[in-house]
Amino acid sequence: MANSRPLILLSNDDGYLAKGINELIHILRSVADLVVVAPDGPRSGASASITSIQPLHFVKVQEEEGLVVYKCNGTPVDCIKLGLSTIVPHRPDLVIGGINHGDNSSVNVHYSGTMGVVIEGCLKAIPSIGFSLCDHSEDADFKACLPYVRRVVDEVLKHGLPYGTCLNVNIPKGDELKGVRVCRQTDGVWTKEFEPCFHPKGSNYFWLTGVYVNNEPDAEDTDHWALSHGYVAVTPTQIDMTAYGLIEEMNNWNLNV
Amino acid sequence: MANSRPLILLSNDDGYLAKGINELIHILRSVADLVVVAPDGPRSGASASITSIQPLHFVKVQEEEGLVVYKCNGTPVDCIKLGLSTIVPHRPDLVIGGINHGDNSSVNVHYSGTMGVVIEGCLKAIPSIGFSLCDHSEDADFKACLPYVRRVVDEVLKHGLPYGTCLNVNIPKGDELKGVRVCRQTDGVWTKEFEPCFHPKGSNYFWLTGVYVNNEPDAEDTDHWALSHGYVAVTPTQIDMTAYGLIEEMNNWNLNV
Repeated sequence: MANSRPLILLSNDDGYLAKGINELIHILRSVADLVVVAPDGPRSGASASITSIQPLHFVKVQEEEGLVVYKCNGTPVDCIKLGLSTIVPHRPDLVIGGINHGDNSSVNVHYSGTMGVVIEGCLKAIPSIGFSLCDHSEDADFKACLPYVRRVVDEVLKHGLPYGTCLNVNIPKGDELKGVRVCRQTDGVWTKEFEPCFHPKGSNYFWLTGVYVNNEPDAEDTDHWALSHGYVAVTPTQIDMTAYGLIEEMNNWNLNV
Repeated sequence: MANSRPLILLSNDDGYLAKGINELIHILRSVADLVVVAPDGPRSGASASITSIQPLHFVKVQEEEGLVVYKCNGTPVDCIKLGLSTIVPHRPDLVIGGINHGDNSSVNVHYSGTMGVVIEGCLKAIPSIGFSLCDHSEDADFKACLPYVRRVVDEVLKHGLPYGTCLNVNIPKGDELKGVRVCRQTDGVWTKEFEPCFHPKGSNYFWLTGVYVNNEPDAEDTDHWALSHGYVAVTPTQIDMTAYGLIEEMNNWNLNV
């Protein structure tokens, strides 16, 4: 019986106790057998970082029919690497990151630990999806987004994803979603990124924060436009970062010594 | 006088004391004024991770005519963000990461803290370059690669780089380099990524390691081919990760609920 059901490897960057990943487990239990390997605490902003200077360790914290949960001392990418190498009973049908508490659209794809999970699954040639709700609060309300999460998962299980591609799915906060738009990554930039942090004995202490500025607020094909107009933004994403358009031009540069 | 010289912001992921960044400082001092904001210790594999759960702090450790060096407790990306927001006297002409001790070609671009530096500079619309020598040893010999580093920097100062693009430059180990090839990112995968780590009181402890497998060893346009044949590999890289080829196809999926 178990072998006829899909197998999904889940992780996140908010830690295994976060509400988002537990909502994801809840909505996907009827769809697939689930193995969760998630950080033992928050790893927001972990990007695709990996840990090589200390040993990685995981501990089983929950086991039920069709669900096993492990916590791990590493980064989101470490969790996926460990999960695939040493934990899953066979190759998963999907790797999923999330549901993140916070927006991973636009340039946030680069900083996101949730998308680190997804990039790693994609690098291992497994269809991979990141889900993020645009609400940072610990007690965010995931109710409106869950049917969309379920639908995207069903469609990826049905269609697959071409090798080298994955999905970055961002969902607006709120009760009423207008539907789904397939988007491109918005061109934007973080500004005003630091606030001074008082330290009784020193200076030059800062908190990282920031104000996001959308460089193309009117571009209707972008993920940030979709989100700001009430749509779920599905951004197909690729692991090949080559700027192909520059290769021919640079062949005319004087690069040899 | 000082204002007529270019200004370059440097960082790395091996820490401000690493040989690689000090070789970079040495070769670039005659070219530009340098501000170095580098991690206070090793951050290999930091990718584009950022730090928001603890304050960031930097300390000036060296100041000479045309050179100021700061160490910082954050990630490579934190260093660039802090450098640009609070340290540099004016907008730099270039952001440079490296010279890394180790190969950042192919899929390593995703895990690399050196390329985190470069992605961050690029996100801030500054021409940015990552340099990596394919030699992990602390005392790696950078002599053969320095003229190429200097030439690539000169050419980027001359030509600029289109907004949204940056360079991932990898250099083979060894005394004799055959020249430069402008490349695309190789399709490859890390395998055998864990070795058990003995722990006196527990199990499930592992070291992250790995064997890289090139999925296209005969592809002469790839960065890994260039490196394995003795060439410096210059891989133009972009921050837009959209998989454009998938957008039209996914518009035919049944994504709405």
